[in-house]
Amino acid sequence: MSAEAAVREVAQRARVASRGLALATRAQKDATLHAMADALLARSEEVLAANAEDVARAEADGTPPNIIDRLRLTDERLAGMAQGLRDVAGLADPVGEVVRGGVLANGLELRQVRVPFGVVGMIYEARPNVTADAAGICLKSGNAVLLRGSSSARSSNAAIVAVLRDAVAASGLEADVVQLVPGDSHDSVKALMRARGLVDVLIPRGGAGLIQSVVNDSTVPVIETGVGNCHVYVDRAADLDKALPLVLNAKTHRTSVCNAAESLLVHADVAEEFLPRVVAALQEAGVTIHGDDAFGSYDDVVVATDDDWGTEYLSLDIAARVVPDLDAALEHIRTWSSGHTDAIVTEDQGAARRFVAEVDSAAVLVNASTRFTDGGEFGFGAEIGISTQKLHARGPMGLPEMTSTKYVVIGDGHVR
Amino acid sequence: MSAEAAVREVAQRARVASRGLALATRAQKDATLHAMADALLARSEEVLAANAEDVARAEADGTPPNIIDRLRLTDERLAGMAQGLRDVAGLADPVGEVVRGGVLANGLELRQVRVPFGVVGMIYEARPNVTADAAGICLKSGNAVLLRGSSSARSSNAAIVAVLRDAVAASGLEADVVQLVPGDSHDSVKALMRARGLVDVLIPRGGAGLIQSVVNDSTVPVIETGVGNCHVYVDRAADLDKALPLVLNAKTHRTSVCNAAESLLVHADVAEEFLPRVVAALQEAGVTIHGDDAFGSYDDVVVATDDDWGTEYLSLDIAARVVPDLDAALEHIRTWSSGHTDAIVTEDQGAARRFVAEVDSAAVLVNASTRFTDGGEFGFGAEIGISTQKLHARGPMGLPEMTSTKYVVIGDGHVR
Repeated sequence: MSAEAAVREVAQRARVASRGLALATRAQKDATLHAMADALLARSEEVLAANAEDVARAEADGTPPNIIDRLRLTDERLAGMAQGLRDVAGLADPVGEVVRGGVLANGLELRQVRVPFGVVGMIYEARPNVTADAAGICLKSGNAVLLRGSSSARSSNAAIVAVLRDAVAASGLEADVVQLVPGDSHDSVKALMRARGLVDVLIPRGGAGLIQSVVNDSTVPVIETGVGNCHVYVDRAADLDKALPLVLNAKTHRTSVCNAAESLLVHADVAEEFLPRVVAALQEAGVTIHGDDAFGSYDDVVVATDDDWGTEYLSLDIAARVVPDLDAALEHIRTWSSGHTDAIVTEDQGAARRFVAEVDSAAVLVNASTRFTDGGEFGFGAEIGISTQKLHARGPMGLPEMTSTKYVVIGDGHVR
Repeated sequence: MSAEAAVREVAQRARVASRGLALATRAQKDATLHAMADALLARSEEVLAANAEDVARAEADGTPPNIIDRLRLTDERLAGMAQGLRDVAGLADPVGEVVRGGVLANGLELRQVRVPFGVVGMIYEARPNVTADAAGICLKSGNAVLLRGSSSARSSNAAIVAVLRDAVAASGLEADVVQLVPGDSHDSVKALMRARGLVDVLIPRGGAGLIQSVVNDSTVPVIETGVGNCHVYVDRAADLDKALPLVLNAKTHRTSVCNAAESLLVHADVAEEFLPRVVAALQEAGVTIHGDDAFGSYDDVVVATDDDWGTEYLSLDIAARVVPDLDAALEHIRTWSSGHTDAIVTEDQGAARRFVAEVDSAAVLVNASTRFTDGGEFGFGAEIGISTQKLHARGPMGLPEMTSTKYVVIGDGHVR
C-alpha cells in the first residue's frame, strides 16, 4: 500500500471513530484519561524498553547528548506524562459549552455551542511525552488524533500509543480515536497534509523549517505554532532594578523554549547606566551578546548582523541594540519579531499603552518576563502549543482552542 | 510591472495603512462610515454611469438577464448600500473587546483582547454592492481591505472604491485602507493568494469553483464561505402542518442563496400522507422535484441520481428521498451535506436532540426554515459571509469574526 493510501486509511478510521467520541460524556472521557494514565504506569517496562531502543539507535547515530536527553524516558518522566493525563481529566469539558445564546425577536432560540473539530493531525519532533499530552488533550476536546512524531522516537511512540489505545478500548471508546500515522518517510507527512476532508486541522510543533514546510504544502487547515523571536525593550522610563532580573530571567531561565527572549532593545537615555550592568550580568550567566556598536564597546561582545535580529537562538545567545526612542523600538520589533511575545519594561503609562497597542504579537507584556507566555502560566491547565497565527487561535492554546462551534436554532415551524 | 509586483505593492500599502486604522477610535471609524455613505449618495451619478458601462458590456456579451440584474445598480440599490454602511456604524466596535481576563495567582493581570487581523483580501463575484459592504465591515473591524471583484463589474467597483477612498481620506484616515486589487487577469488573483505575510486572511465569496481554487492554491489563510447543499428532514414525528410551509419556504423563498434548501428527506412512516401534499405544493410553486423511487411515482418527478444528492441547485429544483428512519437521514446528510445548514422537522425531543448532536454542520435547525442561517436573521447587524469551515469562524460571520485576539499581560517586574 502506498504511503498515501495507508495514511488515508487511518484518517478514515479516525473520522468514523471521531463520531462516537464527539458524543461521549465528560464522565466517559475523564474515566478514559485516568485509565490511560494507569496503563502508562502499569506498562512502564514495555514503554521504557521501547524507549531504550530509540536511545541506543540515537547514540549509535552520534546524536548530540542534549537531543538524546529530550528523547530519553524515565520512570519519573512517565509519571509526569500520567499526571498530565489526570490533569486534563480535571479540566472543564469544552464540548457543549454555550459560547453565546438567546432568543431572537421572532421567538427562535439561537445558541452557539462548542463542538470538536473531528480529526486533528499532530506533526512533532523528538520528545515522546508530546505523544501522551496530545492524545489526552485531543481526547478531552472530543477529537480523534493522528500522531506523527519524530522517526527518532518511533519505538517509544509506538509503545505509548499501543498502551493508550488499549486503555481507550477498555474504557468503552473506540481505540481508533488515537492512532499513529503509519510510515517513517516524508511521504506519510505529505499524505497527512493532503488529506483535506478527512483531517480537519493540522498542528505542527517543532522548528521553523518543519512549520514552514507544513504551512506551504498543506491543503488541510494549519495552526502555526511556536517560533519565538521574542524581544525585551527597556524603556527610558524603566525601573532598571526591575529590568535587570527580568532580562536575565527572559533569556536564561530556560533557553530552548519559544518564549525565551532572543533580542534586547535599550533606550539610549538609559544605555549609559544600564549597559554595563546588563552586559556584566548576562555574561556572568554565560550568555554571548551579539551587539550593535553601543554594546560592541564592551569586552567579549560579538558584532551583530541583520541575521542576529531575525534569529531564534534557543541558546545562551542574545542580540542587543540601543535604540534612540520608543518609535525605533517599535519599528525594530515590527521588522524582526516573529509575533510570539514581546515585552516592555517601563514605569511610563503612556509608553506602556503605546507598546501594547502597536506591537502586533500573540502576547504583549509590560514589566513581566517573556517566559510567562505559556498555557500553564496563563492558567489553562493544558496546552497543545502556542499559536503564532491570527486565525482561530493566537497565543497559548488550551482545550477551548481545540474546538469549533455550531449554531443550534430551535423554532416551532418558523419560516421567513 | 508584473501582476505579482502590482499586487504586492498595494498589499504593502494596505499593510502600512492598516497600522493607523488599528489604532483609530470607534468615533473616528463611525464618522468615516457615515462619510462613505454620504459620498455614495452625493456621487451617485458617477457610480451609476460606471455601472451602465458594465451593464452595456455584459449585454453586448450576451450575459443572461438574471446575471445582469445582479450587476445593475439603481438609486434604490445605492441607497441600500449607503444604509448598510450606516448600519455598520451603529454596531459595537469589536476592537478592544476583552474576551476574557483576570488576575493570575502571582498578581499578573491577564487580558485577551480583540485586535484587527491587519489586511483582509476579498475575492468575490458579480454584485457590486459587496464592494461597499466589505469595505464598511473591514473598516469598522479595523482591517485594511483589498477588493478583487468580478471583472464584469470592474467599472462599477472602480467608481465605488474611488468614492469611498475620497471619503476615507476626507475623514482623516488613510485612503489605502480601501483598495482595489489591480489587474483583471487570474494572475492578480493568484498573486493575492500568494501574498502570505502581507495579507492576513483571504475570504472568497462566490461559487464552489472559485472557493475550491482559492482553498487549493492559497498560502494566505482562507476562510471558506458559502456553498450550501442544505437539507430538510421531515421526521416520523413531524407536525406535517408545520413541515409543509417550512419546506416551501426553505426551497422557494429565495433560490439563489446558499441557505436555500436543496434536498428533502422524508421518513417512510409519514411518506404516504406527506408526499402527495409536498409534491403538489412544490410543483405548484414551480419546483422541479428530482426524486427517488417513492417520489418518482408522482407525475412530473425527474429520476434523481447521486449527482442530485450532491448538487447545490440555486434554482427551483429539489432532490427528494424517502428514508426508512432517522439513522438513514443522518447517514444521507453525513454523506452529502456541504456542512452549511441542515434542518429537522419533528415534535420528538429525542429525535431533535440526536439530529442536533450528530449533524456536523455550521447551523443545525429544529422546526425552522434553513433560510434563517444569516447574519441579519441572527441579529449580527452585518455579515461578511457564511463560513463553512471549522477553523476560526463557522456560520454567519459578523464583526467579531473579522478580528483576531492578543494577550496583554501587565506585571510589576514579574519573573519566573
